[in-house]
Amino acid sequence: MVIDTIRKIYDAVGADALVVKEDDLRFYLTHFSSSFGIVVADKDGASFYTDSRYLEAAEKSLAGQGISVKEYPRRTKLGELLKGYKSLGMPLGRISASDYLSLTEGGYEIKDSLGSFESAMAVKREDEIENIRLACAATDRAYMTLLGEIKEGMTENEVAALLEYLMRKNGASGTSFSTICAFGANGSVPHHETGNTALKFGDAVLIDFGCKINGYCSDCTRTFLFGDDGNHTEFKDIYQKVLTAHMLVKEKFVSGMTGKQGDAIARDYFASYGLDKYFTHSLGHSLGINIHEKPTLSPGDESIFADGMVFSDEPGIYLAGKLGIRIEDSVTLKDGKVVSLTDSDKKLLIL
Amino acid sequence: MVIDTIRKIYDAVGADALVVKEDDLRFYLTHFSSSFGIVVADKDGASFYTDSRYLEAAEKSLAGQGISVKEYPRRTKLGELLKGYKSLGMPLGRISASDYLSLTEGGYEIKDSLGSFESAMAVKREDEIENIRLACAATDRAYMTLLGEIKEGMTENEVAALLEYLMRKNGASGTSFSTICAFGANGSVPHHETGNTALKFGDAVLIDFGCKINGYCSDCTRTFLFGDDGNHTEFKDIYQKVLTAHMLVKEKFVSGMTGKQGDAIARDYFASYGLDKYFTHSLGHSLGINIHEKPTLSPGDESIFADGMVFSDEPGIYLAGKLGIRIEDSVTLKDGKVVSLTDSDKKLLIL
Repeated sequence: MVIDTIRKIYDAVGADALVVKEDDLRFYLTHFSSSFGIVVADKDGASFYTDSRYLEAAEKSLAGQGISVKEYPRRTKLGELLKGYKSLGMPLGRISASDYLSLTEGGYEIKDSLGSFESAMAVKREDEIENIRLACAATDRAYMTLLGEIKEGMTENEVAALLEYLMRKNGASGTSFSTICAFGANGSVPHHETGNTALKFGDAVLIDFGCKINGYCSDCTRTFLFGDDGNHTEFKDIYQKVLTAHMLVKEKFVSGMTGKQGDAIARDYFASYGLDKYFTHSLGHSLGINIHEKPTLSPGDESIFADGMVFSDEPGIYLAGKLGIRIEDSVTLKDGKVVSLTDSDKKLLIL
Repeated sequence: MVIDTIRKIYDAVGADALVVKEDDLRFYLTHFSSSFGIVVADKDGASFYTDSRYLEAAEKSLAGQGISVKEYPRRTKLGELLKGYKSLGMPLGRISASDYLSLTEGGYEIKDSLGSFESAMAVKREDEIENIRLACAATDRAYMTLLGEIKEGMTENEVAALLEYLMRKNGASGTSFSTICAFGANGSVPHHETGNTALKFGDAVLIDFGCKINGYCSDCTRTFLFGDDGNHTEFKDIYQKVLTAHMLVKEKFVSGMTGKQGDAIARDYFASYGLDKYFTHSLGHSLGINIHEKPTLSPGDESIFADGMVFSDEPGIYLAGKLGIRIEDSVTLKDGKVVSLTDSDKKLLIL
């Protein structure tokens, strides 16, 4: 029930009222998607305020969930809605400085709720994992279809557009981030801006893509060759090493390890070949309602990973102006071990 | 030159240093697109700090623009970068409460810069209007192609996906917001969530869509009939009234009028038929780098509109559970008058 999740966060924050305006946090609490709404919970119960656009749908969605749905009184300032409370639980890293100032000047004390949300959201419920699984399956299917439709002369933009179209045709409501598509040496820029470079025989192709289904994200990267022009000896060698790093993480990372330890599995392997300096980003990040969530698998993250967490395993090697190879799956921890959610083939593909 | 825009905002804010972290505001100042960067300007000049991913591209893009490009020192807190300044110009409605608290606890005074940005960004430069014009042209072309490809049985999701694909094929880097596609009575919900309803003969179709080119948005809505099943007498009558309201705004709204006066042109016309209570949103909003900017054309907005502003003209009538009709163009004011930027045909179309 919705009220159980709300109660859990409310208790963790310890303010008179929990106040949630942010789209993603509100969706996490209510499973109801809207561009405007406020959840207010106190020791006696919880209310969902929204405007006339969403009222009917919210009532339907939240019936029997232990939360009452109310129309947000027009032209009411947030402070007025919260009269009678002394302390408010709100996410300090997310509310604006002006909201903070207007509430504290109105006499409210603000207790930070962000940490409680991050901890709760890190471990996914079964229904959340199921939605991520759906998004990952659509991502895999779209990619497999794309491989049959890529042609010489298509631009990075066209390939990205086609892939996004295919994800939507497979049930996605949209992308979980702007698709990155990089041909040839463009792949050596980890966040290459997809452009009008045209695909030619022998190009390496790196695509980082993902979609959303029922509000949950997928994230996947594949690197392959569009034909082999005979100049890919180094590419093939590094591809195998990136794939090995990716698979080592799946094999060795287990529940109870820290994000730092996960990152080190890939980083230490690259270091044994002197390649670690070309692994210029973290191994991975959690994902769920948002494409980037905490904790991360990075050198500085001491968070302990547990069953039910969902994150990316995405080692990459980038040789500036020359090549970039990244192999990424969305994965989860189950019974202590890594289970892949995106799972299209990762053996080096030469189209 | 980039430095001229920075100087203008710096002078308007009146703090020791102007500090700009927000993607859209930073892009407005620098015309350089990145997911991380900070502009710091003081009386002596301006610097753009970014990380290794963007350094080379930023140096190229900002050469000769009067701003120096520097690598953001790793693991440095913002406060350390700003040593020596007493007051910082930052947008209070955009920076987080935690950033605000950490800076003010560090002894900085924050002066709100948001109003200065909003005023400056409301009136578009020629190059900005040109980019919006490109986005609008791609939007129009995609729509015209879509009309030839819509078929019975397609879902709202499929039509939205196809339209988004066509916008990208016409040069867009992506959508400016999630495409709304509503069949039949779904159109009566102004922010209908595009779903799996299948198109059938005689359905009304409402599509609200837009894309981005070179960082600038377009926004357009069309409503049409997918075949005429003979049950559309009321639809046709209201369509003409919405179209008349839309055209009246284009005819009568001139530079020097307020947003409220613009909104009233459509609202008063609807009122003369007793339809104003079904016009449940504002007439329009400014757009540019963001899809929703200020000022708006709404009953409460006393802002004066001027040449160079770009906004939507989007009257709509919604009869709950029955029909929804909205007709929207992106427009600009030039030589005192409204000029349409999206401009595909708005006569009632029966496919």
